[in-house]
Amino acid sequence: MDLAAIEEIKQLKYRYLRTLDLKRWDEFAALFIPEATGDYGAGLSFDGRDALVGYMREHLGPTVVTMHHCHHPEISVAGDRARGTWYLEDKVLAPDFRFVLEGAAFYDDRYVRTADGWRIAHTGYLRTYEVTWSMDDVAGFRLTKGAALEG
Amino acid sequence: MDLAAIEEIKQLKYRYLRTLDLKRWDEFAALFIPEATGDYGAGLSFDGRDALVGYMREHLGPTVVTMHHCHHPEISVAGDRARGTWYLEDKVLAPDFRFVLEGAAFYDDRYVRTADGWRIAHTGYLRTYEVTWSMDDVAGFRLTKGAALEG
Amino acid sequence: MDLAAIEEIKQLKYRYLRTLDLKRWDEFAALFIPEATGDYGAGLSFDGRDALVGYMREHLGPTVVTMHHCHHPEISVAGDRARGTWYLEDKVLAPDFRFVLEGAAFYDDRYVRTADGWRIAHTGYLRTYEVTWSMDDVAGFRLTKGAALEG
Repeated sequence: MDLAAIEEIKQLKYRYLRTLDLKRWDEFAALFIPEATGDYGAGLSFDGRDALVGYMREHLGPTVVTMHHCHHPEISVAGDRARGTWYLEDKVLAPDFRFVLEGAAFYDDRYVRTADGWRIAHTGYLRTYEVTWSMDDVAGFRLTKGAALEG
Repeated sequence: MDLAAIEEIKQLKYRYLRTLDLKRWDEFAALFIPEATGDYGAGLSFDGRDALVGYMREHLGPTVVTMHHCHHPEISVAGDRARGTWYLEDKVLAPDFRFVLEGAAFYDDRYVRTADGWRIAHTGYLRTYEVTWSMDDVAGFRLTKGAALEG
Repeated sequence: MDLAAIEEIKQLKYRYLRTLDLKRWDEFAALFIPEATGDYGAGLSFDGRDALVGYMREHLGPTVVTMHHCHHPEISVAGDRARGTWYLEDKVLAPDFRFVLEGAAFYDDRYVRTADGWRIAHTGYLRTYEVTWSMDDVAGFRLTKGAALEG
C-alpha cells in the first residue's frame, strides 16, 4: 500500500472541495490536468478542465451557498495512476430562489501523478438520493450566516 | 502504529457502509466473519452474520433510501485484532410511509485479520440523538432522486 | 510526510469532538495545552484552556444535543508543530428552546507535540453558513432520542 500517495490524494480531494465551496476558482482549476473530464450525472458532463471550471464559476455565484463533504475514501494506487471512490453529502442553499437541496452520491475519480504532484484526471458521481424544498416551507427558517449575507 | 492495517480497516468499514446503502447484500455479507455479532441498541442485536445480513436484506427494501456516513475513526490494532470507534450520521427516507429519520451514534467495532484480509467480528452503536418527522410536514418536500424512484 | 504524526493528530481531533458531544469535560480539557487559545468567530474567543473548557461546560448543559463532525483533514507537520484545516458540519438541538441550528465552517488549528503526545495549541473556525429554525416549524418533528431524554 502506497500510504503516502493515498494521503496526498485525500488532501488533493479536500482542496478540490474546499476551493469549490469557497469559490476560489483559480486554486480550484489548478487541481485538474488540462484534459480532465467530469460527469455529474443527468447530462452534466465536461470535456476538459476549462469547460468544467467555467461552468462552476458561472453557476455558483456569490449568493449561492454550497456544502460538499466527501467521506469514505477507497483509494487504490497503481504507479502514477490512482482510482478513488468517495461518498458525497451535499447541500445547496440558494436564497434568491428560496431553494434548498440535500443529497448524497458516490464519486468515482481517477488521478494522475504529475511533476507537480497528484492531479484530477476524471471526476464524476452517481446520486443515491436528492431532496428539494423551499425555505418558505419552514416558517421560521433563517439563513443567519452564508455567502449571500457577505457577498 | 500499524498504519497499513488502519488504512485497510477504514476501507473495510467504507465497503460495509457503501454496500449497505446500495443494498448489495452478498458483498455486504462477505465483510463479516460467520460468527460476527451486532448490536444497534433498543434490543436490535444479532448473533451471527446470517441473522444480521438477513435482517438488513428483509427490512431495507428497494423503496427505502438510507445514508450511513461514518466519521472520526479512532482505530487501535493489536496483532490480528483491532478495535474501532466511529461517529455515525445517518438518514432514512421511506417514501411509502412519508417517514424521515436523522440521527447520530458512536460505533464500537471489533475487527479480526483473516487469511482474506480484515473482517468485522462485532459491530454496534450507541445513539447520541435521533429525530423523526414526516415528508408531509414540509409542504414542498420532494424526493427528486432516490432508490424509490428507480427500484 | 510524517504519516504517523498525521494519524495521531486526526485521532486527537476526533477525541476532541467525541468528548465535546458526550460532554466529558475532563477528558476534553486534557487534549489542550494550558495556554491554548480558541476563536469560534463572532467574538467568541478564549485565552487559555480553562476559559475555553469552562465556557463549554457552562453552555452545553445536559438538555442540549450537539453534533460536531469534522471532515477533510489537510494536516502539515513541521517537527513538533503542526497545522490542520478541517471542514466542520455541526448541529445544535436545544429542546428547551425548541431551537435547531445547522451549519458548516472551516477549522484552522495548530498542534504541538508534548511529552504526552500531540495536543491542541489553537483551535478556531470561520463559518461558511448557518441556518436556524424552530422545532415548532415542522409539525410532526420529534426528538425521539437524545441527551435531553436521558440527561
